[in-house]
Amino acid sequence: MQQAQGTHVIAIDHAVADHVERALAAYLATRHAEMAERAPSFGSAVASLADFVLGGGKRLRPTFAWWGWRGAGGEGDGDQAHAVLRAVSALELIQACALVHDDLMDASAMRRGKPTVHVSFTAQHRARGWLGEPERFGAAAAILLGDLALAWADDMFTGSGVDPARQAAGQEPWRAMRTEMLAGQYLDVHTQAMGDESAEAALSVARMKTAAYTIERPLHLGAAMAGAPAPMVAALREFGADLGLAFQLRDDILGMFGDSDVTGKPAGDDLREGKRTLLISVGLANADAAGRTADAALLRGALGDDNLGSDTIERARELLIDLGAVADLERRIDTLTDRALAALATAHLAAPAADVLADLAVAAARRAH
Amino acid sequence: MQQAQGTHVIAIDHAVADHVERALAAYLATRHAEMAERAPSFGSAVASLADFVLGGGKRLRPTFAWWGWRGAGGEGDGDQAHAVLRAVSALELIQACALVHDDLMDASAMRRGKPTVHVSFTAQHRARGWLGEPERFGAAAAILLGDLALAWADDMFTGSGVDPARQAAGQEPWRAMRTEMLAGQYLDVHTQAMGDESAEAALSVARMKTAAYTIERPLHLGAAMAGAPAPMVAALREFGADLGLAFQLRDDILGMFGDSDVTGKPAGDDLREGKRTLLISVGLANADAAGRTADAALLRGALGDDNLGSDTIERARELLIDLGAVADLERRIDTLTDRALAALATAHLAAPAADVLADLAVAAARRAH
Repeated sequence: MQQAQGTHVIAIDHAVADHVERALAAYLATRHAEMAERAPSFGSAVASLADFVLGGGKRLRPTFAWWGWRGAGGEGDGDQAHAVLRAVSALELIQACALVHDDLMDASAMRRGKPTVHVSFTAQHRARGWLGEPERFGAAAAILLGDLALAWADDMFTGSGVDPARQAAGQEPWRAMRTEMLAGQYLDVHTQAMGDESAEAALSVARMKTAAYTIERPLHLGAAMAGAPAPMVAALREFGADLGLAFQLRDDILGMFGDSDVTGKPAGDDLREGKRTLLISVGLANADAAGRTADAALLRGALGDDNLGSDTIERARELLIDLGAVADLERRIDTLTDRALAALATAHLAAPAADVLADLAVAAARRAH
Repeated sequence: MQQAQGTHVIAIDHAVADHVERALAAYLATRHAEMAERAPSFGSAVASLADFVLGGGKRLRPTFAWWGWRGAGGEGDGDQAHAVLRAVSALELIQACALVHDDLMDASAMRRGKPTVHVSFTAQHRARGWLGEPERFGAAAAILLGDLALAWADDMFTGSGVDPARQAAGQEPWRAMRTEMLAGQYLDVHTQAMGDESAEAALSVARMKTAAYTIERPLHLGAAMAGAPAPMVAALREFGADLGLAFQLRDDILGMFGDSDVTGKPAGDDLREGKRTLLISVGLANADAAGRTADAALLRGALGDDNLGSDTIERARELLIDLGAVADLERRIDTLTDRALAALATAHLAAPAADVLADLAVAAARRAH
């Protein structure tokens, strides 16, 4: 198991992601020790999960939740601050479940520049010459470790030490968030299966899967635990919903144009997996409207093509630029970010949360990975 | 969605399973309504999950948890009784996750006499001629609906209305149970992959996956919420651990000899799936000890054979009887049941829990499905 680097002299506000990693490392070390003693082979699987959780990620959800808490007047230091930090760090375990299961469902081979969990357990089975199909073992390990991450997310949240009244106030966003994540994943799979190319379908997946789950609900959670008044919660949620959608549209662009060395995922993966993103939807709609049937056919043919070559990916990229889809998404990202910042200004947050969230918003909308 | 039949004039004690079904039906109807409005396609997937949860099962875990509560002096009627009933009904949602994911991992086609969740979503995809591979869609739906059941188990438990102090007292068994279920599933998959035929391996899986998760922890949960003193909890857990093991050994026998019309699963499924149960382990050890190499080879060859025919299953059954494995397991079941009943007698439970639990123990050890 990896250990997060120590930063305990630095205040949480100045190093939220580092503190989140320390909280996760401490939690996972305790649970790993329990299981390693009782069932060594399961302990070693738990160690793989811990390596996955501690092996990277932007810690975006806990960071937004932390600033929701601080913005609504929650303490930046002391016992309750550290308890809230543990509670919001549990969001990374929900995310671990989402990623491990998503990679299995999409049959993705790489994540954060490393083999995905099912691929790594498949390889272990094959290398040791165990019985049965290696792929089936890899899939089972990924299913069970994703389940474990989801169960432990609840354990870490409930056992965080946050005052019972504050924890009770956080239940509504906590509940909604996990269901919205799963609903978003299902809508995504369903939209791909239906071959639904409409902008409405792409936006509906993005709103549930990313906007609500990644930004709106974490902010809601932090603010609710701090006892934020209803208008502040509403303003933060509006900010989060708009920013979350901008974040997803940036993801659409990075999924086609991102540098795989930076994103940790192969270029063109969205296209290969047949994801009907808003970028693709706008590209197809523009091609159809302009009567560019050959271009539309190229894009439609590439969607979900497992053997997609780099030439076709390159051609699809050129087309998405030429058809104005990239420019359309950039405009939408700008509009959504502006609207998010306007909503943020009405939230009347405690300093320094308003400034930090505004910076996070701009960074999330402009990020390169 | 199916509806549980009404029985609200009958006291909980006299119809625990019916009351559990009513609690589950009410909970699932509320959450279904929420999602059906926001995302109709996901709402329809949720309806499938609700049908699965309400479509059968012995409600064993909530029943043991209820009698743990009653035995430790918890009320049989009134607000808190109904809140505890909701809390323990959430165990059926954990079990739904376990079954839906287990069926996918084992590639089982049938459960409770109906197609399993992944098979049913695969068929839906194929019938509608959707895009992509039907099996991949079926697997994704089963993964996400299992995850949803696990997340909702926590929501239903936390939102049950049980007094906060009682709920806090239930946290330890609640946490342990979910991890033990997943650890048991992983040990099961790992033992099969390693081809470990030892009795120790089979017993270790059975203790974690069935004894702890199915009986010991539910009793612990109910008793803890009622504020049971430590010696009572210890006696109940001892009862549960022994009875749970007896229950699993009965399952081993039914997995080979059960009537598929009654069990709802094809006969010989354990053998086909390569499960190294204690029954198989004892059979192999006895064959090896007696130098019956041809018989041992037949059993080993049948383990994990996807194309296992009914002749070989019949021959394997005869061998397991002839090798004394069935008699050995029946003796162990008797010993474990006696030991469980002796532990129960030291728990000093409130009436009528002691009698009901003794009856449940005998029924679980002797059951035919």
